[in-house]
Amino acid sequence: MKILIVGGTGTIGQAIVKELSQRHNVIVVGHRQGSMIVDIADKTSIEAMYKQVGRVDAVVAAAGAVHFGALQEMSAAEYQIGLQSKLMGQVNLVLIGLSYLNDSGSFTLTSGSASDDPYRYGSSPAMVNGAINGFVKGAAIEMPRGIRINVVSPTILTESMKDYGHYFRGFEPVPAIRVALAYSKSVEGAQTGQVYRVGAYF
Amino acid sequence: MKILIVGGTGTIGQAIVKELSQRHNVIVVGHRQGSMIVDIADKTSIEAMYKQVGRVDAVVAAAGAVHFGALQEMSAAEYQIGLQSKLMGQVNLVLIGLSYLNDSGSFTLTSGSASDDPYRYGSSPAMVNGAINGFVKGAAIEMPRGIRINVVSPTILTESMKDYGHYFRGFEPVPAIRVALAYSKSVEGAQTGQVYRVGAYF
Repeated sequence: MKILIVGGTGTIGQAIVKELSQRHNVIVVGHRQGSMIVDIADKTSIEAMYKQVGRVDAVVAAAGAVHFGALQEMSAAEYQIGLQSKLMGQVNLVLIGLSYLNDSGSFTLTSGSASDDPYRYGSSPAMVNGAINGFVKGAAIEMPRGIRINVVSPTILTESMKDYGHYFRGFEPVPAIRVALAYSKSVEGAQTGQVYRVGAYF
Repeated sequence: MKILIVGGTGTIGQAIVKELSQRHNVIVVGHRQGSMIVDIADKTSIEAMYKQVGRVDAVVAAAGAVHFGALQEMSAAEYQIGLQSKLMGQVNLVLIGLSYLNDSGSFTLTSGSASDDPYRYGSSPAMVNGAINGFVKGAAIEMPRGIRINVVSPTILTESMKDYGHYFRGFEPVPAIRVALAYSKSVEGAQTGQVYRVGAYF
């Protein structure tokens, strides 16, 4: 398969590339580095990326910004960051990508555990992740040409505990390589409309 | 209690008013009618409403627009309708309303079943409802002064089947008066961070 991995340079992205490049032709796209650059908050940038890449068998997205902040200090503009980047960035990767995806291809997006298992300063990720999970369930039943769509919702990564662990006391971290398995299941399996919750949600 | 019901003129809103006005001082706010008018997509309009109403014990929101359309025909702009109105409209009712809500008061928002039990043309409501549910779970754990927040997620209303039933074949409708009970539970009970799924989600 020819697989486009948007955000393939990040912590999860690198693990996905490691897992899928063993068996597939993987194209790594990053925000600042990678074999190609894209700004998923910018539709023009997404369109340019797809035009350059051409037809693909799978699109994986592990990208998008979201603002963390105390509820009482959050502004509507700060919620917009996650809505425009992590949410609509990934949604636009789907809407525009539909013209480039081969029959029976797949989209795999990324959300996160905040919408199910919230933490302090996480009301924006909770909103955005819930939105992505909902969109994927809604979009899955309307996909044309046997195209599938799933989303991976990981808890805090082991690799992120050094920098962000103080926000996630008591949360059991999951290694990126384990999270990567869910992307493999989505891309190489046959399920659709699934939210793969990876890690412990207790 | 002094309870502000935004969207109190709609199908669900009228049932909420009927339920809560038996025991409380209810202020009905509508988009086009009601004792007060508000446009929840406009922050200035929300601020003006709260200034006029003053302090309250509970804010109930059963309001907000969202675009229904086939996935392959949906534009990013059409997704923005739901994000700016039903989602951020309700979120702004919370963020701005925090200054007007008495200690131990409550917010009760409205989502819908699309994010759990999707239907055709529903990818935008699925996204928006998932976002509202996620926001409520995230916001609940950061609420100050004993303030609570819940969300009611109803399936299709019995009252809406005449106009929209053809989109919801096989969905078991729920009468608005039954949905109204969940708002009563949220406002008059003590739970927080709950998604009250009302109706059959099979």
